[in-house]
Amino acid sequence: MTKVLVWCENVQNKTQENVIAAYPEGMHNTLAGFLSADGGLSVTTATLDDPDCGVTDEKLAETDVVLWWGHVAHGQVPDAVVERLYGRVVTNGMGLIALHSSHFSKIFKRLMGTSCALAITKPGYGAEKLWTLLPGHPIARGIPNPVEIEAEETYNEYFDIPQPDELVFNAAFEGCGSFRAGAAYHRGRGKVFYFQPGHETYPVYRQKEVQEILLNAVYWAVGKARG
Amino acid sequence: MTKVLVWCENVQNKTQENVIAAYPEGMHNTLAGFLSADGGLSVTTATLDDPDCGVTDEKLAETDVVLWWGHVAHGQVPDAVVERLYGRVVTNGMGLIALHSSHFSKIFKRLMGTSCALAITKPGYGAEKLWTLLPGHPIARGIPNPVEIEAEETYNEYFDIPQPDELVFNAAFEGCGSFRAGAAYHRGRGKVFYFQPGHETYPVYRQKEVQEILLNAVYWAVGKARG
Amino acid sequence: MTKVLVWCENVQNKTQENVIAAYPEGMHNTLAGFLSADGGLSVTTATLDDPDCGVTDEKLAETDVVLWWGHVAHGQVPDAVVERLYGRVVTNGMGLIALHSSHFSKIFKRLMGTSCALAITKPGYGAEKLWTLLPGHPIARGIPNPVEIEAEETYNEYFDIPQPDELVFNAAFEGCGSFRAGAAYHRGRGKVFYFQPGHETYPVYRQKEVQEILLNAVYWAVGKARG
Amino acid sequence: MTKVLVWCENVQNKTQENVIAAYPEGMHNTLAGFLSADGGLSVTTATLDDPDCGVTDEKLAETDVVLWWGHVAHGQVPDAVVERLYGRVVTNGMGLIALHSSHFSKIFKRLMGTSCALAITKPGYGAEKLWTLLPGHPIARGIPNPVEIEAEETYNEYFDIPQPDELVFNAAFEGCGSFRAGAAYHRGRGKVFYFQPGHETYPVYRQKEVQEILLNAVYWAVGKARG
Repeated sequence: MTKVLVWCENVQNKTQENVIAAYPEGMHNTLAGFLSADGGLSVTTATLDDPDCGVTDEKLAETDVVLWWGHVAHGQVPDAVVERLYGRVVTNGMGLIALHSSHFSKIFKRLMGTSCALAITKPGYGAEKLWTLLPGHPIARGIPNPVEIEAEETYNEYFDIPQPDELVFNAAFEGCGSFRAGAAYHRGRGKVFYFQPGHETYPVYRQKEVQEILLNAVYWAVGKARG
Repeated sequence: MTKVLVWCENVQNKTQENVIAAYPEGMHNTLAGFLSADGGLSVTTATLDDPDCGVTDEKLAETDVVLWWGHVAHGQVPDAVVERLYGRVVTNGMGLIALHSSHFSKIFKRLMGTSCALAITKPGYGAEKLWTLLPGHPIARGIPNPVEIEAEETYNEYFDIPQPDELVFNAAFEGCGSFRAGAAYHRGRGKVFYFQPGHETYPVYRQKEVQEILLNAVYWAVGKARG
Repeated sequence: MTKVLVWCENVQNKTQENVIAAYPEGMHNTLAGFLSADGGLSVTTATLDDPDCGVTDEKLAETDVVLWWGHVAHGQVPDAVVERLYGRVVTNGMGLIALHSSHFSKIFKRLMGTSCALAITKPGYGAEKLWTLLPGHPIARGIPNPVEIEAEETYNEYFDIPQPDELVFNAAFEGCGSFRAGAAYHRGRGKVFYFQPGHETYPVYRQKEVQEILLNAVYWAVGKARG
Repeated sequence: MTKVLVWCENVQNKTQENVIAAYPEGMHNTLAGFLSADGGLSVTTATLDDPDCGVTDEKLAETDVVLWWGHVAHGQVPDAVVERLYGRVVTNGMGLIALHSSHFSKIFKRLMGTSCALAITKPGYGAEKLWTLLPGHPIARGIPNPVEIEAEETYNEYFDIPQPDELVFNAAFEGCGSFRAGAAYHRGRGKVFYFQPGHETYPVYRQKEVQEILLNAVYWAVGKARG
């Protein structure tokens, strides 16, 4: 069994109506739900509400991959938690999958060595197509090209990340926006994958293709094949 | 002086009205025109009409960079000419800049080792934005982000190229198309740059930003700085 | 079952005493032997002696990965065979593992787009250490760092290959020689791995660590995990 | 004029006899000496002895490239100085050249996002050969392949860095040690180059080829050509 920890900050989920509407059960539970349906994964969740963010040394010692979703509360994640995650990735080979606005999470910035800032030229939302650039990559296996997403927050380049070791997906948005939406990295003994879709007001994580990509990414991060 | 050879097949320019309208003087002369205006470049042209395509050993021995534009007549370029170009790049360090439909030229395919096929999901034309992914790259110097192009042929991924050593530009098109539009490679002692804009029915090579990118690319290919 | 085709030219094995001494059963049989011992692989062999090199469309249609070892007879492999292999890699996602002097095989050069020439500064043989640069890579899993090889032909840089997508191993040789010894590439839908050890007069393919690397590479090429 | 700041910690230079013997004038002055001899560079120096390490906002505002050499006193460089350097690289496009034991400097680790630890299998010193992997790269221009260094500290893989955007040099050491000795990165708008030679007890920075590499690297970092 591959042990997966789904971490969401779980802040807007409590008070913001359109977020509650998109993910009434809490986004961490949505993510854990479809991941758990895979027979090879053992999935737990944690949020900012847990002591030590639920990211203790004991917890990480029995975790193979972390999915991380943060947005308005990046600053509330203690530096000690960040260093703990960082050490597990670089030294112990744990996988880390940074989702959507987690491009700006402390742990992703720590692992990239750049600002990880991006541009939002026209704040807003629109249709997105997600294009596969590496059809032979394990994360792209079985994924249609393109994946069409009805509505997403429209991110834009310049996205200040190091050149990915493997740029698996590019996104294009209504209005000719462009974004490196699926970027894979080796970091020490571990693997890191950034994936852009997942704005909190659109139930993107309910879309089958997006779920398939995340399942692929979990298996890729631990170097296993999906059954 | 950096010696530049502009090569265009010069076929549609003779008979196709909308191509003649876009480039009445011939596209090779348009390209040579703005390149020549740069004091550091000595520019000549050649086409399919020239004996041996105008790409002889003698010519290449005094050439630092070749810009190559082909489309309907890739097959008419003799293999011997392709091997000559190839050898100059890999062994002698000549630069090669492949333009637009030259993604499918023999010389570009030879240097890439892949099919270099691309997708045109909806044959047609539309607005394009060209996004800079490496703001510190010499080819991106002084280029606005994005560059807006009023109308271009809408190419799409999957574009079957090796992962670029440096992905300098991504294009997004009306309708959420996406394309790796500026891709840089080391090949042996030489450098290769693929640049997507330049469909024959739109006078894209008259656009100032596009000209600046090509000038930057020429200097990058020979490892010199623009004056 | 993953279907593996081991191809060796099988030329020096017939007449050259020190090659016969190293691989009395024929190198293709040595390779097939330890690969077959893995329960997940179904392994066949072919050589230059087979009609059409044993590399027919029918054969490739049921092959997931090819291991290729050639040396003195690269030129005897028909171009049609090379194009057949090439198409299966780029279009159908077949894996290709090029061994030792196959750096100069037609198929490897075709897929790289460079000369693939290397330097042999002091023709001869010496001790080699093989160093892991990507400890989290599937091909490096379980491999000691370094792997010590008692005697090998001493290859040297400059090795004229494109920058690998993943440089998994570097070799250093007695006398301070250096060589990119384990280089992984995406090519279209397929994956390519070059691996330097395997000179015909040293029984390197009997060494446990080398066998483990090749087993890892086979599974990596098809995107599966070793059992 | 390109403005270069040479920063050395200048600690062992004061008390350790074999360091004083190698660089009686102080290593920062050795470096500044040969760099200043280039007509296009304006060179200043700073050390740990200067207030704020000599790395103030004012100083950096007029600096194009920093060469950084640290070893025993990494911890004495204040975090504020590190963030200042980091911001200038990522946001303003300043170049940073990290020398030898500066693989473990705060600023290099900050920019890499990995531990940057390396292995010293057999503590000691020996002959080194430095091999060019990208003969067309501006940093390799005019550099013999290999460069032979009589004696250096023998570093080894695994060197915990991200895969370089451009791996320009590999080192091999007596005893079959191997090390990625010249590694180039884009980081935001800036460029970073790590270069391994330069142990404090061997006067490596007096060697002509090493000086040429560093001059090339300075010009590469600012995107200019050497005159």
